[in-house]
Amino acid sequence: MQLDLDSIRAAHERIRPYIHRTPVLTSERLNEASRALLFFKCENFQKIGAFKARGATNAVFALDAVTARCGVATHSSGNHGAAIARAAKLRGIRAHIVMPSNSAKVKVRAVESYGAHVVFCEPTEKAREEKCADVVAKTGAILIHSFENENVIAGQGTAAVELLEDVSDLNVVMCPVGGGGLLSGTAIAAKSMRPKIKVIAVEPANADDAAQSFRARRRIVTEKKFTIADGLRTNVGEPNFAIIQRYVDDIVTVSEEAIVSAMRTVWETMKIVIEPSAAVPYAAILEPVIDVDGKRVGIILTGGNVDLDALPWNL
Amino acid sequence: MQLDLDSIRAAHERIRPYIHRTPVLTSERLNEASRALLFFKCENFQKIGAFKARGATNAVFALDAVTARCGVATHSSGNHGAAIARAAKLRGIRAHIVMPSNSAKVKVRAVESYGAHVVFCEPTEKAREEKCADVVAKTGAILIHSFENENVIAGQGTAAVELLEDVSDLNVVMCPVGGGGLLSGTAIAAKSMRPKIKVIAVEPANADDAAQSFRARRRIVTEKKFTIADGLRTNVGEPNFAIIQRYVDDIVTVSEEAIVSAMRTVWETMKIVIEPSAAVPYAAILEPVIDVDGKRVGIILTGGNVDLDALPWNL
Repeated sequence: MQLDLDSIRAAHERIRPYIHRTPVLTSERLNEASRALLFFKCENFQKIGAFKARGATNAVFALDAVTARCGVATHSSGNHGAAIARAAKLRGIRAHIVMPSNSAKVKVRAVESYGAHVVFCEPTEKAREEKCADVVAKTGAILIHSFENENVIAGQGTAAVELLEDVSDLNVVMCPVGGGGLLSGTAIAAKSMRPKIKVIAVEPANADDAAQSFRARRRIVTEKKFTIADGLRTNVGEPNFAIIQRYVDDIVTVSEEAIVSAMRTVWETMKIVIEPSAAVPYAAILEPVIDVDGKRVGIILTGGNVDLDALPWNL
Repeated sequence: MQLDLDSIRAAHERIRPYIHRTPVLTSERLNEASRALLFFKCENFQKIGAFKARGATNAVFALDAVTARCGVATHSSGNHGAAIARAAKLRGIRAHIVMPSNSAKVKVRAVESYGAHVVFCEPTEKAREEKCADVVAKTGAILIHSFENENVIAGQGTAAVELLEDVSDLNVVMCPVGGGGLLSGTAIAAKSMRPKIKVIAVEPANADDAAQSFRARRRIVTEKKFTIADGLRTNVGEPNFAIIQRYVDDIVTVSEEAIVSAMRTVWETMKIVIEPSAAVPYAAILEPVIDVDGKRVGIILTGGNVDLDALPWNL
């Protein structure tokens, strides 16, 4: 992949009419508790309720008119699917979204609200990919993978561009890692704009393939245990891992308890709704598995699409 | 009472160093659903998580040095107590907060976190007032009532001042009514700044003394049924009702179901945490009991202090 800050800035120009420039919030209480200055980039306020609007919109609008004609397809447990559905609607093309049968209702409703064609499949990675290949074969739609896609990565990197434009002198930028779309875009953007910044990724200990791969310096695919951070169950992608090896400073892991506690603390203190995956970076500060003492830390709050009938502290 | 826009502007100057100028948020989805333009003044992001920080801070800082020496006292089921506790801490004086024994844990913890002296009492209006009088007699502290207090009302009015400064050409401003502190301050500010604006208050049907009083043109005190909007169970105050009669255009009532539905809709759509009382104005649009078609409507979201272990849709 030939991805750099220029591709990310081009993505930013392309998607600007269709996404929010989300606010950066701070909390005196959380600053005191962490003895750092934390700057939360609120992608929970983003269109479709998650940063995924950025990458999907860039990928859909980057297609030339002929390619776009047969529509787009993807498989997604939620946010990327909604983001592709919305972007396709904005461009006036068809979207086919393959979703696991156990997807959260709120996420299925979101996809359907944009008029996309939803296809359910068994909740395994293999079933998703097969069903999606099937849809592509039948319709001629273009597959837009949720993280192994250059335009998606460039789009996700635009959140970090805004964060670094809005907050000066950040020492650290943190985000969660699942497939690695957000992390690779964030890392390219942050290191290019501010070479001295540390890029720290955080992963649930129950889905720690990226951390294992990072230490081993080769991509390790693991069987995942359950994690409440359902957006991060995926193994990191191949092109993503190459970028991560080059630009990321560290990948740390957090317990399920720390994720739930971080999520609840953010809700109670900042009065904002974030999904479990979004709480993973702050969980690393809470646990603590990283030292942020005295630092200026940017944290990407990835999304806010939560099933209010199944909150983790009620389970 | 000699309350006018000047008193509210003076309050604003006095409290400015100690409170947030909260943001005004909008939602395309909620605008579409209501066929209006809704501007949400986010007092859930205010210090102590509620607009009550405004009135309490004004009342505490308006005291002269001699009067302030023996500290302040109040009775409150939560937000006003936390607000007085915080203001007293900022001013360096003692606060005694009488709280009903069934107060939400999160609210008791908030009061205690500011170093106030918490005194529990039976959960009745009579027990609260008696215990508070007792505390005042013993300590010489100054009672700062949560709504029957000129400085409190002036402070609460500052939220509407900011809202009208930040959003031009509002046709309607809406807020909930309990004791009437926020409503009377809001009504004076809004009507003084923009005489043509409609001031609409909303009350749970299960605690409709203000609506009954408004229709009867005399203050009616009622026995309250249960309402999930626990901040609004109080009867409207006498001085507050006088202001309401003069400045308020209408008081409408909403069902418990509409309150829960409005609260959940705001959480899911706007990704912000609001407490049930804060959802009451939007519930009036959802029910619907008022017509906002084509209008520019300011809504004061009063607070975000919720017990996450007892969310209404899980009860």
